[in-house]
Amino acid sequence: MPENAGLPEDAPIAAVTRGALLESVHRGRLAVCDPDGNVLEAVGDPEAYIYARSSAKPFQALPLVLSGAADAFGLTDRELAVACASHNAEEPHLAAVRSILNKAGLTEDDLQSGAHLPLYEPEADSLIRSGEEPRPIHSNCSGKHAGMLAVCVHEGYETATYRDPGHPLQRRIIGLIAEVCGLREDEVLVAGDNCGVPAFALPLRRFATGLARIVTGDALPDELGGAALRIRGAMREHPFMVAGTGRLDTELMYSTELLVKGGAEAVLAVGSQEGWGLALKISDGSERAVRPAALAALGGRGFEVPDAVFSVRGLHGEAVGEIRPWSEARGRAG
Amino acid sequence: MPENAGLPEDAPIAAVTRGALLESVHRGRLAVCDPDGNVLEAVGDPEAYIYARSSAKPFQALPLVLSGAADAFGLTDRELAVACASHNAEEPHLAAVRSILNKAGLTEDDLQSGAHLPLYEPEADSLIRSGEEPRPIHSNCSGKHAGMLAVCVHEGYETATYRDPGHPLQRRIIGLIAEVCGLREDEVLVAGDNCGVPAFALPLRRFATGLARIVTGDALPDELGGAALRIRGAMREHPFMVAGTGRLDTELMYSTELLVKGGAEAVLAVGSQEGWGLALKISDGSERAVRPAALAALGGRGFEVPDAVFSVRGLHGEAVGEIRPWSEARGRAG
Repeated sequence: MPENAGLPEDAPIAAVTRGALLESVHRGRLAVCDPDGNVLEAVGDPEAYIYARSSAKPFQALPLVLSGAADAFGLTDRELAVACASHNAEEPHLAAVRSILNKAGLTEDDLQSGAHLPLYEPEADSLIRSGEEPRPIHSNCSGKHAGMLAVCVHEGYETATYRDPGHPLQRRIIGLIAEVCGLREDEVLVAGDNCGVPAFALPLRRFATGLARIVTGDALPDELGGAALRIRGAMREHPFMVAGTGRLDTELMYSTELLVKGGAEAVLAVGSQEGWGLALKISDGSERAVRPAALAALGGRGFEVPDAVFSVRGLHGEAVGEIRPWSEARGRAG
Repeated sequence: MPENAGLPEDAPIAAVTRGALLESVHRGRLAVCDPDGNVLEAVGDPEAYIYARSSAKPFQALPLVLSGAADAFGLTDRELAVACASHNAEEPHLAAVRSILNKAGLTEDDLQSGAHLPLYEPEADSLIRSGEEPRPIHSNCSGKHAGMLAVCVHEGYETATYRDPGHPLQRRIIGLIAEVCGLREDEVLVAGDNCGVPAFALPLRRFATGLARIVTGDALPDELGGAALRIRGAMREHPFMVAGTGRLDTELMYSTELLVKGGAEAVLAVGSQEGWGLALKISDGSERAVRPAALAALGGRGFEVPDAVFSVRGLHGEAVGEIRPWSEARGRAG
């Protein structure tokens, strides 16, 4: 086991109150870095590893541009954006995924993203009501998988085995993540993601640095920097395609100049064209803590963001408590 | 704000691993006490408050026995058990709730438990497919509310306002919780629970002590001790009625001599006829950590419990990681 497999130093980052008392607390780690890897701000240990999970999707989409597949198949920016998405499976998401597959001469049957109910509850309910089982295209990762398949077709890689960590596409992605984040390939640790492709673990600081580079194109070779800016541009042009209705990534990209991509187990990746990347991990993996923690951090960096304090509502609609950044909870308790 | 509104001392209690690394960690607090309030075992600060949430339901059901309502209406042990339940809204649960209401001369329309989809997913899916909206009877708390209403009818209390913290039934419940746990009434702090009745906060140690008393009847006045044993007996006779298919409370009560009642925000209350109560709170409120933490603690106390290590499965059915007690995660990392 690597030394960092133990408990990394973290700090309280969000509070759940009920009535006058703290009911639950979320700890986390956060690092803000410039493209040269300098730590501009940190909560907890910036050197300890995190699994980037779906926050790595913008990196995983780089071969789509670099291989020439995106141009060869005439992919639109909407389609590039959905290839970087953890989408809600709303109709525009499904249409974009189908279009990528179609342009690459493939069909839904080629997707190996695994199946789960749409993340967006009304779509999930509608699928349940229809009596249909969820299909791989409903998976929040289906755009990423469609993009991976398009690269395989373009490069003449085998499509049936594209999920294997040893497949040439996956090897290329691991190499690119290491390069963008300034690590040796063997410093990027690989495990299985829930959708069946590799998940990447790397030090929080290196991930934040990679985000600073993706969003600026700085400190990267020209071709790679260009591909990064194209991915950034597509996501920024189409925030809805990256997530969907009610989702933090989408809302923040509409309201700020930021690049935003969430990941499972409560990870958030943010990049600012001011020249920094921010990586956030809620230690316990609770999604509900991401929004208050992220809004507090971004507010602290001067962004106009919505109030970071959210009511917890009971079943009669009444406010029974709040979820808020730890900084404000402490102010309140004092 | 009370002094304990800050961050109580806790400790890592469950780990979520992926591949070779720790991905997420859950901290928690735990206290095991005898009926006299002695701490037999503790993780974190046993004096800091927790919200007992639905783990308080066996206490909230005491007036049903003490008032004579259970006898007057001829409530069965199944019905007493569902009055202590956070149930799955499976058919036997709904039938028992309807029966309590019927015996008290009331109907579903009198329930003010608020509505949410059945906790048991197949029942939730079936309700969605039927096109029906969830009703208050589907709320996991509907048995508690039906029991409260039965007391009101029996005692001549107003039924329309039974949820008010100032209602005579709620005042009586607060008094009983204080008495059983060995606190002054003003030391039991009250806020709103999600279903609209009072939620109770008290020191972890006092809650564990109250559980030791409920499960043994010890250190309580005769009448109160007798009511506690009747509640215990009903829950122990009908573990399915207390929760339902796949639920930890139900499974543990079938496989051990323990009294077990979970609560929202990752609380678990356990009582052993050996003469102790155990109260567990996962600090971040994550339900997924309750099972490994509880099984490890109960295994450590000599109970034959299932393996406390659970696979995390990806969408292709493959094991991508594990949820396990922190003690075992440390052994593994070491």
